[in-house]
Amino acid sequence: MKRIQKSSFKKTTLYVGNSFPRPSFLGKDVIIIIDRKIISLIPGLSAWLSNFSAVYRVTAGEELKSLDKFSKHMEKILKMSDSLSLSKLKIVAIGGGSLGDFAGFVASVLKRGVGLIHIPTTWLAAIDSAHGGKTALNAGKSKNQIGTFYPAESVLLVKKILMGQPLVRGREAISEMVKMAFLTKKRWASSFFKSKLKDNRLLWEFLVDAIKEKYDVVERDPFEKKGDRRVLNLGHTFGHVIEAYYGLPHGRAVMVGMNFAAHYSRQKGLLTEKEYQKILNLLDIHSENKDLQLATRRGKIDKKTFYKLALRDKKRSKQSKIIFIFFKKVGSVVQREVDVKDFYDFAKKQNWVK
Amino acid sequence: MKRIQKSSFKKTTLYVGNSFPRPSFLGKDVIIIIDRKIISLIPGLSAWLSNFSAVYRVTAGEELKSLDKFSKHMEKILKMSDSLSLSKLKIVAIGGGSLGDFAGFVASVLKRGVGLIHIPTTWLAAIDSAHGGKTALNAGKSKNQIGTFYPAESVLLVKKILMGQPLVRGREAISEMVKMAFLTKKRWASSFFKSKLKDNRLLWEFLVDAIKEKYDVVERDPFEKKGDRRVLNLGHTFGHVIEAYYGLPHGRAVMVGMNFAAHYSRQKGLLTEKEYQKILNLLDIHSENKDLQLATRRGKIDKKTFYKLALRDKKRSKQSKIIFIFFKKVGSVVQREVDVKDFYDFAKKQNWVK
Repeated sequence: MKRIQKSSFKKTTLYVGNSFPRPSFLGKDVIIIIDRKIISLIPGLSAWLSNFSAVYRVTAGEELKSLDKFSKHMEKILKMSDSLSLSKLKIVAIGGGSLGDFAGFVASVLKRGVGLIHIPTTWLAAIDSAHGGKTALNAGKSKNQIGTFYPAESVLLVKKILMGQPLVRGREAISEMVKMAFLTKKRWASSFFKSKLKDNRLLWEFLVDAIKEKYDVVERDPFEKKGDRRVLNLGHTFGHVIEAYYGLPHGRAVMVGMNFAAHYSRQKGLLTEKEYQKILNLLDIHSENKDLQLATRRGKIDKKTFYKLALRDKKRSKQSKIIFIFFKKVGSVVQREVDVKDFYDFAKKQNWVK
Repeated sequence: MKRIQKSSFKKTTLYVGNSFPRPSFLGKDVIIIIDRKIISLIPGLSAWLSNFSAVYRVTAGEELKSLDKFSKHMEKILKMSDSLSLSKLKIVAIGGGSLGDFAGFVASVLKRGVGLIHIPTTWLAAIDSAHGGKTALNAGKSKNQIGTFYPAESVLLVKKILMGQPLVRGREAISEMVKMAFLTKKRWASSFFKSKLKDNRLLWEFLVDAIKEKYDVVERDPFEKKGDRRVLNLGHTFGHVIEAYYGLPHGRAVMVGMNFAAHYSRQKGLLTEKEYQKILNLLDIHSENKDLQLATRRGKIDKKTFYKLALRDKKRSKQSKIIFIFFKKVGSVVQREVDVKDFYDFAKKQNWVK
């Protein structure tokens, strides 16, 4: 494992390696929480797991995050921890976003907090959810209403795991990378936009750059108190609406959401025509027409549903206002409070709503 | 409410007042979590509560801290939070130790952490558990195995509430105050030992001094990582054993535990004869003979049970070693690792075990 960076944000260290880490790298007193279904999918993983005495296999997904089931999980995990040293105890989370949310929460409340290592197995987790310290459970139908801010000690990016991901999962993650590239003026972003690499190779090539970008943003506002972190919401405000309404995958919805944000920014006069065209062109490279075709199959969104979905977004500040992330140019965005009516009117103008 | 001190430890502010705070002092967007049974016991509390729209009444005790029930509680609390502003949301905990543990945990995980204000209603909570940021739930029979470090924004000490506590609850808390006084060379400690005040009056008089002492210790080791905080365990190692075996109230067990620690320290040569006698005299003032009579009624502890209880203590480091807090003199203690066999042998010499 190659150590990439020691972030000042509560000391999360990023590591990159071609294959699974040596067991001793993780430590002796670890409890591995792993998505059961990936064990057979990743060659060598099952043999590697046999190095550990405490392996907790779970079925990943939103159901795993149910607060109702948490007590049962915790009792089993506590039992596993009995024979391990409390001061060295670590949770190692191997899985995608939902598994990471769950295992991160477990680590944050187990004996008032133990070590946490993430080994993300999906591109979305590798680029996004494994970083930034957000953990979450669901209470009833309320998603992510229970949680902690609990950054991992380390995040391990394993090439063998990630490059083995199916193409469709990679496509979902590319929108996150496009988003990070739009937020920065750093050189990696223009290399990324110019790159001829495709899919998983493109993702692996720029993964560390995109993550470092995220750390930079998170470090300015680790507990989401100051609002600096909201720029990560670029493409998400409209994205979440269509994700919920059309059942689009998150990554695709965000791609469409960034497209929407470009038009909206132009309408507000925040973008010059030249920058506007540039952004649309860059978005085009990574968008698929299928996104929009899929989206429109269910027809336009009715007004009431649009308002409900727009205001449900967790980044809302007051009941009738939303904070929208606008483009200023490539490499620079700005957050503005807009009335939900204004947001609705523009969505209508763009033919998304009735 | 008079502001006493802004602690540097995650900014907990201590307030002292004669009666309940003005409702506006707590803020508009608060959820009050209160021990149901104290509402009728404290004059004026019921009327004061009517100022708030979100009041969650619970039955305090260890059952409240059950992880199994947490999901049900959380759904109700989330519902109450719907109409309140997320950014200003605060949990106000009104109750004793178990209520504070529960409400503190709720505040620490509700929407990834909201504000927390403690209004302790027992002396033990006022002097001890409301401070230091430990929150806790129980998983099955494992007490306090789930929790967070989440210090309150403020702790409000209300004279009217505390002075109304029955004498027996006050007696329990005095041992905590005696303990804090033994840990410091500051002037308040000698005033405390010389004071002719009794019971609740004595507690109120020195409450803020004892709490400040605790903050000083906690600030040296907020997450219990360095071991500095272990001095707070004076009297607890042996105290916990007899608390569990004889079913003694915690405060009384700690008083006996400090007595034991004095003898043990003298045996180890850590105390001069003069300091030893001084400590025994100071302990005598606040001890009741009833403590020991009660304790011995069940007969001596058998060896196996003693080992089990001694090693169960959460402050243990390795399986056969315990960390014991010894007296060096009045105002100064020292922590030493001892073998559990040595601890057992001395307890046997003191006629506590078979």
